[in-house]
Amino acid sequence: MSGVSRYIDDLVKRLSRLPGVGPKSASRLAFHILKMPREEVESLARALVEVKDRIRSCRVCFGISDGERCTICADPARDGSVICAVEQAKDVLTIESTGEFHGRYHVLGGLISPLDGVGPDELHIGPLVARCREGGVTEVILAFNPSVEGEATSLYVARELRELGVRVTRIARGLPVGADIEFADRATIARSIQGRMDL
Amino acid sequence: MSGVSRYIDDLVKRLSRLPGVGPKSASRLAFHILKMPREEVESLARALVEVKDRIRSCRVCFGISDGERCTICADPARDGSVICAVEQAKDVLTIESTGEFHGRYHVLGGLISPLDGVGPDELHIGPLVARCREGGVTEVILAFNPSVEGEATSLYVARELRELGVRVTRIARGLPVGADIEFADRATIARSIQGRMDL
Repeated sequence: MSGVSRYIDDLVKRLSRLPGVGPKSASRLAFHILKMPREEVESLARALVEVKDRIRSCRVCFGISDGERCTICADPARDGSVICAVEQAKDVLTIESTGEFHGRYHVLGGLISPLDGVGPDELHIGPLVARCREGGVTEVILAFNPSVEGEATSLYVARELRELGVRVTRIARGLPVGADIEFADRATIARSIQGRMDL
Repeated sequence: MSGVSRYIDDLVKRLSRLPGVGPKSASRLAFHILKMPREEVESLARALVEVKDRIRSCRVCFGISDGERCTICADPARDGSVICAVEQAKDVLTIESTGEFHGRYHVLGGLISPLDGVGPDELHIGPLVARCREGGVTEVILAFNPSVEGEATSLYVARELRELGVRVTRIARGLPVGADIEFADRATIARSIQGRMDL
């Protein structure tokens, strides 16, 4: 701590608790804020609190929403027959940023992880099954991380949904765009061969 | 922009204007804030505005201060006979963090840079000369960046102060701790030879 100003010290301390912000960048940010116009700092401060106060969980897909239902669930132009299931709300934004998916989403709120005490009942899997049971859903795309928990959750969700006659797919694993076969790990190459496509 | 929540979009936009925060880390920060306890977010928001409202410039050294005079200028234990001149207020914290300097500071508020239209009169050089003229100051250490502007400012300040009989020194240039001579640039090695010290 600097000891020069308790206000700077307090701000640096709070900023360095944020993910990816170390003490040096916290101090850099604090001095930047000191030079920013007062209205901009006020707007930033208000934006922080508003995110906490105004955002809730969409009651259909459990994604983030400004109202009862999120803009994607409320949009009649989105294809309601395809649901993309993701682990957390921010994954929705990541997939939306590609512009590749035009269906709806379902946020599980986590992945099955017995070691962390997270079973299927802790997740929003029941509501996903209910959405499919209501009819109109023909395909559920599982878009979880390629991890042990992701695999376990995929298997569980797939079993629940196949009983309803819904097609269950999973996003492809393979070489990331721009990667080099020489430096790719064996598991990724094995997956890329298993998932090969006709040209 | 996500289009999912205008509150998230607004926060991400404002965060990505901060130095060193790109769109991806801004989005990561925004989702972290969404999960933080409300009181913590409020305290962070308050800390941001307080830094703007409460911090002023010390009327002696122009460093940041919570009051009229900063804690360093007001501290009778600090050696008033040695002044370390720096470019900007955050340089004071950097030097303080070493615990190596026990004198007082003077913040110029910039460096002489004719190309950017910054001459000596735009900087707090006059007040530094006045502090030395008041007496009691025996040495002024110049701690500017080793750049063209830093050199120009050093030369100007040194000329002004030598007339008053004050010793003017400059922080050493040489190999940074942990550096490798093999990979150091020629200018740095040349400076390290010029500035060699007796063992």
